[in-house]
Amino acid sequence: MFQASGTVVRFRSLSPFHPLAHSWTRSTMRSLTVDSLNPAIRNVQYAVRGELAIKAEEYRVMLKEKGQDSGLPFDRVISSNIGNPQQKGLDQPPITFNRQVAALMEWPQLMQLAPNAFPQDVIDRAKELHEEIGSIGAYSHSQGVPLIRQNVAKFIQERDSHPSSPDNIFLTGGASAGVSLLISMLISEPHKSGVLIPIPQYPLYTATLAQFSGVAIPYHLDEAHEWSTSIDEIKAALKKAKEDGIDPKALVIINPGNPTGALLKEETQREVANLCAEHGLVLLADEVYQSNLHRAAEFPFTSFKKVVCDMGSPVPLVSFHSISKGVTGECGRRGGYFECHNISDNVRAMMYKMVSVGLCPPLQGQIGVDCLVRPPKEGGESYVLWKEETTRIHKVLAQRTKLMAERLNSLPGVSCVDSPGALYLYPKITLPERAIAAAQAAGKEPDAFYALALLDATGICVVPGSGFGQKEGEYHYRLTCLCPGVDEYVGKLEKFHQEFCAKYQ
Amino acid sequence: MFQASGTVVRFRSLSPFHPLAHSWTRSTMRSLTVDSLNPAIRNVQYAVRGELAIKAEEYRVMLKEKGQDSGLPFDRVISSNIGNPQQKGLDQPPITFNRQVAALMEWPQLMQLAPNAFPQDVIDRAKELHEEIGSIGAYSHSQGVPLIRQNVAKFIQERDSHPSSPDNIFLTGGASAGVSLLISMLISEPHKSGVLIPIPQYPLYTATLAQFSGVAIPYHLDEAHEWSTSIDEIKAALKKAKEDGIDPKALVIINPGNPTGALLKEETQREVANLCAEHGLVLLADEVYQSNLHRAAEFPFTSFKKVVCDMGSPVPLVSFHSISKGVTGECGRRGGYFECHNISDNVRAMMYKMVSVGLCPPLQGQIGVDCLVRPPKEGGESYVLWKEETTRIHKVLAQRTKLMAERLNSLPGVSCVDSPGALYLYPKITLPERAIAAAQAAGKEPDAFYALALLDATGICVVPGSGFGQKEGEYHYRLTCLCPGVDEYVGKLEKFHQEFCAKYQ
Repeated sequence: MFQASGTVVRFRSLSPFHPLAHSWTRSTMRSLTVDSLNPAIRNVQYAVRGELAIKAEEYRVMLKEKGQDSGLPFDRVISSNIGNPQQKGLDQPPITFNRQVAALMEWPQLMQLAPNAFPQDVIDRAKELHEEIGSIGAYSHSQGVPLIRQNVAKFIQERDSHPSSPDNIFLTGGASAGVSLLISMLISEPHKSGVLIPIPQYPLYTATLAQFSGVAIPYHLDEAHEWSTSIDEIKAALKKAKEDGIDPKALVIINPGNPTGALLKEETQREVANLCAEHGLVLLADEVYQSNLHRAAEFPFTSFKKVVCDMGSPVPLVSFHSISKGVTGECGRRGGYFECHNISDNVRAMMYKMVSVGLCPPLQGQIGVDCLVRPPKEGGESYVLWKEETTRIHKVLAQRTKLMAERLNSLPGVSCVDSPGALYLYPKITLPERAIAAAQAAGKEPDAFYALALLDATGICVVPGSGFGQKEGEYHYRLTCLCPGVDEYVGKLEKFHQEFCAKYQ
Repeated sequence: MFQASGTVVRFRSLSPFHPLAHSWTRSTMRSLTVDSLNPAIRNVQYAVRGELAIKAEEYRVMLKEKGQDSGLPFDRVISSNIGNPQQKGLDQPPITFNRQVAALMEWPQLMQLAPNAFPQDVIDRAKELHEEIGSIGAYSHSQGVPLIRQNVAKFIQERDSHPSSPDNIFLTGGASAGVSLLISMLISEPHKSGVLIPIPQYPLYTATLAQFSGVAIPYHLDEAHEWSTSIDEIKAALKKAKEDGIDPKALVIINPGNPTGALLKEETQREVANLCAEHGLVLLADEVYQSNLHRAAEFPFTSFKKVVCDMGSPVPLVSFHSISKGVTGECGRRGGYFECHNISDNVRAMMYKMVSVGLCPPLQGQIGVDCLVRPPKEGGESYVLWKEETTRIHKVLAQRTKLMAERLNSLPGVSCVDSPGALYLYPKITLPERAIAAAQAAGKEPDAFYALALLDATGICVVPGSGFGQKEGEYHYRLTCLCPGVDEYVGKLEKFHQEFCAKYQ
């Protein structure tokens, strides 16, 4: 029956004699073509989930449906294109405490039905949250559950030794939602308002700027010095932008860096804060990797909130955090927050109005934020397991990052900064001239061409440097350090690289 | 210590002699004032969570902190401004099956730890979903988990007896996210591209149009005929818009209506489809209340997908559904979907690109969608309880809507269409001249003035008609039929109305 009606639909919409076929054609022209859409949408690019990720998904489906008969030279797809710690095949399990609290919030009767299944501190937490929130099936305050915002403020105060107010905290559906809100508000004049972004950058920034017709003002990070941020680079970019008639509205810092994993020195942070204050730029501090530190003694994290408060700087600051990264890795819940500092009540009221149109952030994301900022306390029943789980995650990631960087660096034509933070490596690759020519013949960026060949040969999906921005004639790719056995994984990367270079030598 | 640093910050930012104070002032002027923000943001209005809701929240906090000493003439706030079935103090509990599945997805070990706490069909569902998804802490496909999209397509096929493809389904963080995506894509020329919307409307539409600088093209619903939709009204609005140089891109239908609860006749739906096809308008069908039917025999729901397929119409259609309403009422999870029909692959690829920037919809929202479209099967262990729970919710809501409509209609100066669907009543109120004068003196819309007085006197928060749109000189308010005991609730409304009218007579 479905097929039948399906056929009818197809037939009618195709027949030029059908009375509606004409309007079909017209409506196609009028409303259904890409050209008729908001042109800003057409300019949006998001490499992390672009051509490569789509092809990887197709391979995954082929392998699932056909298995060995898929004819593919690999038996599984490894999605190293995205920092997704809990994805299938990887080995970062969720934190037990967080999931136990979440389960009790979904179905509180479990406290009576299976009391022995839950540690006491889990039950206490769930009771406290349930008393405040009621059902997690209800909308919360659009800015987020007040009690959870209070806990975020306490977490920030303890981290920075400076005051934080729940009124300045907005819980969000992941950090991306917050970044998108801020950029949509700050771009006051299409194609004229600009935002300074690091190169390489996380493509969310260029994608969101394109969507809201803002101008990306790139400043380059220094690969020769472990991807450090140079205030002179930023000043030069700012100067050039103003000469080009761009009105800079904000400056984005990603610390620890994505894709670079680099950490800013406090001195640089102070210079950045002064520069923003001087030029009236809103400082957007993307600090979602603040707890992914592999060599914390040498490369510690200091929040911009602390730096700005230490200085008594008046710079308007919005800092972002997330439950998707760190040791929680709860990407699927969509949880995060941003804190406003030196932002006027009127502007904050506008933010509130805008988030209220979206009603509220997902409640399980908000619960996740509460567990992020209020982990089990020492002495509590869950503490030992929580400590074990989080210590292991930090240790494995640090070891793996170091090992992968070493092995990539040992490859001819590959140089790789050993990331002190975040979840990624961003190796620079020197490609043979003939490979570059072949890429151009195929109409691809050379590093995209390389990454596609890598996917076809190994099932490993990475993101080409062209998606993050790089200097003319340089090529990189980003891969996550979240992977199954390093040997198998890096072994595949090495074998492919040697074969690729040999082929185009 | 916090206070201290707080003081330092305040002092420095105030002192005109401080080196940074100057740039503070500059930065305030440059970046921190409302005037420097995207002007489109300033035009956004969302009455459902506007002035009244904010004041209600303040009263709630006062009552929580001071209790009887709050000095307020009521002991609790009743949020009738928003369709939020599971909010505290209301009596629509979550569906047990849905929450049991959700709990097992959060912490699958419960299947072993507390096997007897869960019915077999819950365990089977959780196992199946877990096998497909893995950890719900991982990002899913940006369009939503493939298996869940397949189940949505099956649900649509069974509802409409027409084919539906998972490729045309996008899971979303509530219907609002989908509506916002579509409007952001369809507004190709600021202040020129328009969208036809019903008046009264759900303010999400005007808010989102304002955000993306689209033009709202209002067509009035007919209150005298139970808020019916007239094709002639729509044609007249379309004609006028074209005369005004507006380029109409889409037509919004809310069926069942919000705030009216009205259902479209199939004949009207066919006329609407033909009109959209003829003028190349995308038909945006907001069908989130499709299962909230109080008199289904007299006022049945037919989806636009079915109507369009029955006709073999080529009209580009996007229809929206949600887990926030209906009998699930899971607003806090942020789950929903939209289906594209007669939309080209290229345009769908653009939609995919845009949702991929937001990574993925919340996984618990997606699980909620699966439970919405795949409720327990007859014969399954959960079926009887599920049937009881859903039957009760339908029955209570239908009875309450009828009773509330009767009592409101019995009030002098109040007339109210007895909604056959959705969750609301939208009474029309005749206000005394002196009340209108007092409102104007206070700089308020008369019905907002009435609603504020209602909140101050009773703690009941409703939304004034001016937030939804109404004819010049007419006044309404929307209240939900989700409430504690009807007598107490409506009794307060009646008493207030009589006192208000007496005061301004």
